[in-house]
Amino acid sequence: MPKIIFLRHGESIWNHQARFTGWADIPLSEKGKKEARLSGQQMKKAGVVFDIAYTSLLKRTIQTLWLILEEMDMFWIPVVSSWYLNERHYGALQGLTKSEAIEQYGSEKVQLYCRGYEVQPPKLEKSDPRYVGHDPRYALLTPDQIPAAESIQEALARFLPYWHDAILPKMQSGNNILVVSHGNILRAMISYLHSLSSQASSLSSDQEDIETAKPLVYEFGQDMKPINRYYLHD
Amino acid sequence: MPKIIFLRHGESIWNHQARFTGWADIPLSEKGKKEARLSGQQMKKAGVVFDIAYTSLLKRTIQTLWLILEEMDMFWIPVVSSWYLNERHYGALQGLTKSEAIEQYGSEKVQLYCRGYEVQPPKLEKSDPRYVGHDPRYALLTPDQIPAAESIQEALARFLPYWHDAILPKMQSGNNILVVSHGNILRAMISYLHSLSSQASSLSSDQEDIETAKPLVYEFGQDMKPINRYYLHD
Repeated sequence: MPKIIFLRHGESIWNHQARFTGWADIPLSEKGKKEARLSGQQMKKAGVVFDIAYTSLLKRTIQTLWLILEEMDMFWIPVVSSWYLNERHYGALQGLTKSEAIEQYGSEKVQLYCRGYEVQPPKLEKSDPRYVGHDPRYALLTPDQIPAAESIQEALARFLPYWHDAILPKMQSGNNILVVSHGNILRAMISYLHSLSSQASSLSSDQEDIETAKPLVYEFGQDMKPINRYYLHD
Repeated sequence: MPKIIFLRHGESIWNHQARFTGWADIPLSEKGKKEARLSGQQMKKAGVVFDIAYTSLLKRTIQTLWLILEEMDMFWIPVVSSWYLNERHYGALQGLTKSEAIEQYGSEKVQLYCRGYEVQPPKLEKSDPRYVGHDPRYALLTPDQIPAAESIQEALARFLPYWHDAILPKMQSGNNILVVSHGNILRAMISYLHSLSSQASSLSSDQEDIETAKPLVYEFGQDMKPINRYYLHD
């Protein structure tokens, strides 16, 4: 069975500033570009190959992938970019630093917004310039699909149909896959995969922190449940 | 009716050395990278938008597109890379400089190899390290589809079904399209479009030279025949 490699994008400028980012389209920092190149070098050195790569519609994942493909000399790999892989939408928190958010909402609430599974951050108004309803990249989404804010649960619920309908069938038909996505999505995804596995204890915890640009390799059994996983830098 | 923009990749290292390149996968030169960025800036300034971009499987087109998308801040545009858009295969000429080729084959023959419409350059042997039969990016091609050399006519005959089956329908369904390809392919394509047009005289000649990274915009009528064309830098 082929493998799936999960990768969080390299550090973005707002990661560096500890700002809530969500669907804001913030580029990689210089450090993030270096991290992305390094992960490409690691995969090349480890002899990792993949046949198709997925990114979100946000440039921090796409820039990360391009730098990886350049380092691996695999420019030609098919790339599919989809909003289903976008970061969790952080609503009205987007653009605030963590301390600005705490000032505005209190630390207890901010903690809940960050890690409470079913807790939705404050919604963005449709009149807010941060609302993406008029961004051409989302033109094919129905108004219902464009979030004003997402809980972790909602973000995972948006990602999972794409996982099952688009990504897993590609693996089942023999393709090794690279998925470049975001911290909240990948943490929720790992937690979901963990819940499927009978070898749960060896496969991470619910609150695993997802570092930027560290390739995480998953191997699956015939039943599409994970049977092994490892970080490539281990 | 939407538009199609044709673009030859920026200068490659072998362009700069006046080497026959074909399917050899040679990166952009520093000048080529600048040209690519400039064409992105030109398109941005002219308010050009496209909804999907096509490249060959060769890195000089993919690098060119990435630099354009970066300049236009349109990282998220869907990209389709296909061998159908690869440069004409130059057979055993690949890697030779023009003067080396003349030394080996004589200037009359080299002139024919370059511009004779039905003339195939000397074939690559399957044992030649330049033969791409084992390159994973061409793994899905049948042995018949992997060329040992192509005449201009053969290269166009390989490209045209993709033009009609993949690219034109995308335009007909409302998408502006960027096609990043190669000198021989684009020259042959322009000549083909020229032959379709009732306004032929205004639409270029058979021997038009295709400069690197100059956006060439085509407008089509309802019958899919070109009705207007212009270089963006004009």
